[in-house]
Amino acid sequence: MATGADASGLEAAAAAAADTARELREAAAALFARSSADEDALRRRATALDADIRRLQGSLSTLGPAMLEKRSLGISDFSHGCATLQFRHLLSTWILCISSPAEVEEELERARVTISDSDVDAFLPSKKRGKFLNTFLGPVNVRVARKEDKLKVKDEYNNYRDRTAYMFLLFPSTLLMLRWWIWDGCLPALAVQMYQAWLLFLYTSFALRENVLIVNGSDIRPWWIYHHYLAMLMALVSLTWEIKGQPDCSSNQRAVQLFLRWAIMQGIAMHLQNRYQRQRLRTRIALGKAKRMDVVAGETAGVEGQLLLLYPVLFTLQVFEAYVGVLLLQTALHGLASEWQVVVCGILLVVMAVGNFVNTMETLMLKLRFKAKMKRAKSRQDLSHSSPNRPHQN
Amino acid sequence: MATGADASGLEAAAAAAADTARELREAAAALFARSSADEDALRRRATALDADIRRLQGSLSTLGPAMLEKRSLGISDFSHGCATLQFRHLLSTWILCISSPAEVEEELERARVTISDSDVDAFLPSKKRGKFLNTFLGPVNVRVARKEDKLKVKDEYNNYRDRTAYMFLLFPSTLLMLRWWIWDGCLPALAVQMYQAWLLFLYTSFALRENVLIVNGSDIRPWWIYHHYLAMLMALVSLTWEIKGQPDCSSNQRAVQLFLRWAIMQGIAMHLQNRYQRQRLRTRIALGKAKRMDVVAGETAGVEGQLLLLYPVLFTLQVFEAYVGVLLLQTALHGLASEWQVVVCGILLVVMAVGNFVNTMETLMLKLRFKAKMKRAKSRQDLSHSSPNRPHQN
Repeated sequence: MATGADASGLEAAAAAAADTARELREAAAALFARSSADEDALRRRATALDADIRRLQGSLSTLGPAMLEKRSLGISDFSHGCATLQFRHLLSTWILCISSPAEVEEELERARVTISDSDVDAFLPSKKRGKFLNTFLGPVNVRVARKEDKLKVKDEYNNYRDRTAYMFLLFPSTLLMLRWWIWDGCLPALAVQMYQAWLLFLYTSFALRENVLIVNGSDIRPWWIYHHYLAMLMALVSLTWEIKGQPDCSSNQRAVQLFLRWAIMQGIAMHLQNRYQRQRLRTRIALGKAKRMDVVAGETAGVEGQLLLLYPVLFTLQVFEAYVGVLLLQTALHGLASEWQVVVCGILLVVMAVGNFVNTMETLMLKLRFKAKMKRAKSRQDLSHSSPNRPHQN
Repeated sequence: MATGADASGLEAAAAAAADTARELREAAAALFARSSADEDALRRRATALDADIRRLQGSLSTLGPAMLEKRSLGISDFSHGCATLQFRHLLSTWILCISSPAEVEEELERARVTISDSDVDAFLPSKKRGKFLNTFLGPVNVRVARKEDKLKVKDEYNNYRDRTAYMFLLFPSTLLMLRWWIWDGCLPALAVQMYQAWLLFLYTSFALRENVLIVNGSDIRPWWIYHHYLAMLMALVSLTWEIKGQPDCSSNQRAVQLFLRWAIMQGIAMHLQNRYQRQRLRTRIALGKAKRMDVVAGETAGVEGQLLLLYPVLFTLQVFEAYVGVLLLQTALHGLASEWQVVVCGILLVVMAVGNFVNTMETLMLKLRFKAKMKRAKSRQDLSHSSPNRPHQN
């Protein structure tokens, strides 16, 4: 009889499980329906607010200068936050305290940061998703909804860069050391090709990860991603490039050696960059000045004293990169190497060096302009602090 | 005066925007908190139900045979859904209608499908995410919550396979045609290398996309992903392989030509597979038999008549793949090609051919077993239809 009881117990349990499954199916569908309705409502409000802020910033930029020009119409002393209105026909002077354009601008900027640095950001339309991600991954959603998860993605990217920087230093150093120590001045093709394959993988993963960051609202400069595409292409091309050994290894492998030395320099530069960027991001997050998804993956480290070290290293790196490129082109021109790969790698290196230089310069200019602006804002604040009529500060 | 009014209007609008931004920030945080609480509750219930179903299936598999063995104790005629219990000491016969183990099993399977084929699936822990995805992409979440979005991902993957199948046919055909027509029997290295680079990209994107599908609950056989890893490796190795031209091009490039012909065959097989799989999936979805995320990416097309065409093509393809592999190894053994790439590519081709064969056979066996089981179930159903004591049917 035990079997009959067990069996019918099992049957009842199975029926109950089927019921619970159906119940859960309804509950899950209801939950998704409810939250997508809530999300739609929030999305509409967030989009409207975003449009408002843009519109206000637009009218500020047209109205702002006009406001300052109105001094001739009787409005003066605007910079202290108050306009002194002189109505001559009433023979009186009114003082109207309104915020200066700069303060309205700051208020709007604060509103924008409130959106972009909170969960509200998830409800604004995403930046256009690159073709690269679609090609490799298909149209799957890689956007992270919660701000805290976005920070995790960002943090993991930084950790990846750190780990990579070590490899960037170790891999070519090991090759050059073994060449001198064991390989008798002549790199074996397989070792170099493994390094090139690793570079191909590395730049692909960088390009994928940075595209994911962009979808998640990072302000990374487009060039640094294009740079990874070019570097991918170069790694691919160099894989097809026959590494010549003996006889006369040292002249055959001259370009490879230069490239490896340049790679070691890049490893050092990556270490410096990573350290500076982390510090800069920490500072900027502390000041609440930056969206935390900013990965200014290029050369935009910020702490003043350190810049004296980083920027010279970066510029040297770029000059060296261009030099290796030109050297490759020369080798091809003098007929020492007839393969098309030499020409292509030479051109790519020069293009990357020029692009890196232009973008590093632009970032530096931006930094200097930002610094000047901060200085002006600070002095204005000091002025308004000393003024008795200063407007309320939020 | 207009300017003063505009300016103060602008100030008020900016302040209002800042207020709305703060309000939205709270609303978004509250919405996320609420939905994650709701989701946690659902997750707990779904996990408990999932464990229940597993437990019941476990006890069924131990109890089921025991139930059938109880005939010796007086329980007989179980297959009709009713147990005839003969209690000899009471000199009477009771007929106890309980479901047969097969029916309980079906009920449990239905409960499982209710979960996996609805939004509830999103609340069950995801399958272990492969290292591959983490390495290339970092730990970003690629799991799609809603069932309808999952279907979109799946559908896009199928479309990608379709587009790819055309390229798989066109690319090597064009190369072979140009070789005969323009290149005078000798493939230029660049053309072949471009093809190899395309293969490397293609297998990488397949591996990424299929890993995404697995995270989203697809039951793709692991071998087909390993196969893509091996194919990636082969494409990479073959890129470093110097393509020899004249003199004696036809013997130097013999392996390359064979490989291209095999690739054309694979293009044809992919077309057949894609057609059959779509048809099979459509049928199975219509029958409600399959989770719709199943991508049996290998050779598991199902429609009977078509199998007579597809399976022979697949087996021929595998034999041809192994043949090309063995031929490469022979070339290396006879000292005609001394590069290590020839040996590695040969081994990889043989391994892939054997793996493909084993997995195609396993799928075929599974299919035949499933068919036999369906047949048994059908005949049982027919029997119970004709039985007067048949139990309730859900």
